[in-house]
Amino acid sequence: MKSDEFIVGVDVGGTKILSVVVNNEFEIVSRCRKKTKGWVKDTNPENKIIQTIEESVEQAGNPKIVGIGIGAPGPVDPKNGIVINTPNLGWENFPIADILSKHFAVPVVLDNDVNLGTYAEWLLGKNKEAKHVVGVFPGTGIGGGLIVNRKIVHGASGGAGEVGHITLQIDGPLCGCGKRGCLEALASRIAITREIAALILRGESTYLTDKVGTDVSKIRSSVIADAIDHGEKKVEDIVRKAAYLTGVAIANLINIMSPELVILGGGLIEALGKIYQEEIQRAVKEHAMPFLRKKVSIEIGKLGDDAVALGAALLCAKKNDKL
Amino acid sequence: MKSDEFIVGVDVGGTKILSVVVNNEFEIVSRCRKKTKGWVKDTNPENKIIQTIEESVEQAGNPKIVGIGIGAPGPVDPKNGIVINTPNLGWENFPIADILSKHFAVPVVLDNDVNLGTYAEWLLGKNKEAKHVVGVFPGTGIGGGLIVNRKIVHGASGGAGEVGHITLQIDGPLCGCGKRGCLEALASRIAITREIAALILRGESTYLTDKVGTDVSKIRSSVIADAIDHGEKKVEDIVRKAAYLTGVAIANLINIMSPELVILGGGLIEALGKIYQEEIQRAVKEHAMPFLRKKVSIEIGKLGDDAVALGAALLCAKKNDKL
Repeated sequence: MKSDEFIVGVDVGGTKILSVVVNNEFEIVSRCRKKTKGWVKDTNPENKIIQTIEESVEQAGNPKIVGIGIGAPGPVDPKNGIVINTPNLGWENFPIADILSKHFAVPVVLDNDVNLGTYAEWLLGKNKEAKHVVGVFPGTGIGGGLIVNRKIVHGASGGAGEVGHITLQIDGPLCGCGKRGCLEALASRIAITREIAALILRGESTYLTDKVGTDVSKIRSSVIADAIDHGEKKVEDIVRKAAYLTGVAIANLINIMSPELVILGGGLIEALGKIYQEEIQRAVKEHAMPFLRKKVSIEIGKLGDDAVALGAALLCAKKNDKL
Repeated sequence: MKSDEFIVGVDVGGTKILSVVVNNEFEIVSRCRKKTKGWVKDTNPENKIIQTIEESVEQAGNPKIVGIGIGAPGPVDPKNGIVINTPNLGWENFPIADILSKHFAVPVVLDNDVNLGTYAEWLLGKNKEAKHVVGVFPGTGIGGGLIVNRKIVHGASGGAGEVGHITLQIDGPLCGCGKRGCLEALASRIAITREIAALILRGESTYLTDKVGTDVSKIRSSVIADAIDHGEKKVEDIVRKAAYLTGVAIANLINIMSPELVILGGGLIEALGKIYQEEIQRAVKEHAMPFLRKKVSIEIGKLGDDAVALGAALLCAKKNDKL
C-alpha cells in the first residue's frame, strides 16, 4: 500500500456497525460507530452499512480508498463474499461483498468476525511470525478463530472454529445451541452470571446485592471485576472455574492443532485478564500434551473493540496483495 | 508417474516394519513385513528398514523405484525428513529421510503414521474431493490425522492431531500420557479391556471367561467382537460406551475443524465397525453443531494394515509431482 492509499474495515454486529479507515501502516485515522438495534431487519440492510462506511470515509477527509474488508458473525463463504447464515442478524446467503463492491467500486473481502479478530491480534501483535494460531473470545458466547499455515480455516461449512461448542461435560447444562455441556454453557458470561445470580439470591454477595440488586442484566464484566477487587471470594471462584474450563477447551485445541500462539480476547478477558491467564495456564498444564504445550505462547489481545474491523482491513490488504 | 515407475511405501512401528511397492495406480505389487521387536534399539536402526525395503523391491522384480515414502509414529519434521521424537521407538531427531535418500539415491518423504493412514484412506477412498478431513484410529492408543485445505496439518510441534488426548472428563481416569480424562484413557482398547477385566473378575461374562480365562492380554478386538456376537450384553455396553465417547471427541473435531469427511480406522473399528458407526453417529448428532455436522460424511477406512504404507507412497508421489 502506498502512503496515499487507505482501506476501510467494517465490523457488522447485531446491535452495532463499526467502520474504521486505516492508513498503509494500519493505524486508524477515523472511526464511525452506529448503534442500530433492529437495523438488520430492514429491507436493504446494506444501506446502514454503506452509510456508516461513508461517514467514516468523510471523517477521514475523503482519502483514496483502495478496498473494504468486512467482518460478520456466523459462517461465511469468503471466496464469494457471502454471509451464509447469521442467526443474530437474520441473514441467509447475503452477498454483502458484491453489493458493497458495486456501490464503492473497490474490492471487498468478507470473513467471520471472530476469525478477523484473531487475524488482527495475530498480525498486529508481537508474535506475527507464528504460523498456527488459535483465537478464543469469551463473552456472551465464546467464539474462536483458527489460523493454519498462516491462513484462516473455514472448513467445509464456512463455520469452523466453534470453540464455544466443544463438549466438556457430556451430560452438562443445556447450551443455547440445543446441545449439552458445551464450553459456552459452562463458561460464557451468561453461565457466569447464572452462577452469580444464585449467589445473590442466597445473600452470598453483599457487594453485588448493593450494586445490582437482583437485576441480572446489570452484571457486566466490569461489575464482576469490581466485586472481586472488593474481596468477594465466591464471585472469584465462579470466574476461576469458568476461566479454567475455557483453559481445558484451549488445551484440547492445543492437542488438536498444535499452535504456537493462543490469543485471548473479548470483554471477560479485558476485565478479568489476570484470573483468566492464571487459570488457563493451569488448565493447559493439566490438559495439554507436554510436547505440544511447550511450543505455545498464550497472550491477551490488545485491540479491544477495534480488532474485527482492523482484521477486516488487514485481510483486504492481503487479498489485494498490498500487505 | 509412468507405467514403468514404482514407489516404495514403508510403515515403521515399534514391533514391525512393512514395506510395499506400488505401481503408478497405487496398486501394491509386493509386500515385505518384518516383525522385529526390539530392533529400534540397534545402533543403526536404519539397516533393518533398508533390508525390508530391499526385500520388497526384490520381490517386485527390481522395478525402477522413483521415490520412497515412510511413516513413523510420533511428531515429525516433514520438511527435513526428521523423526523428532518417538517414545515407542526411542528415536530423537532421527534424520531417516536423509539416510534412506543417500542409500537408495531417490527422493524420500517422511510423515507421521496416522497422518499417512488418514491420507491414504482419503485419497484412495470414494470421497477424495473432500478438502477437510479428520482421521481417527482407535486401538491401543487413539491416533488422529488432520487434513486442512488438502494438506496434512503438523502444527508448530510436528505433532498436531493428538485426538486421543482430547480431555472429555476433567477429573477422569489417568491416561498413559500423565493427564486425566483423555479420550484414550476412556475409550482405547486398553480402557475397554480394563472394563472387561472387571466383568470377568465379577463372573459376568461366561463367554470371555471360557475363552481367555483371566489373561487380559488375550482380549483382542476380535475376541470382543465374538463375545458380542454370542450375546454378551455387558461387553457390548462397554464397547458402545467407548464408541460413544470416541464419537464425542469426533463431534468436538467437527465443531473445531468443520471437515467434510471423517475416516475411522484401526483394529477396533475393523472388528466392531457397526457398533462404532451407530454410537459415533449418535454422539455426533448430540454433540456437533447442526450446520457443521450436516456437511460431514463418516466413513470406515478400507485399507487395513496397508493404510500407512500406501499413504507414504501417495505422499511421495505427490511431493515428486507424480500424482
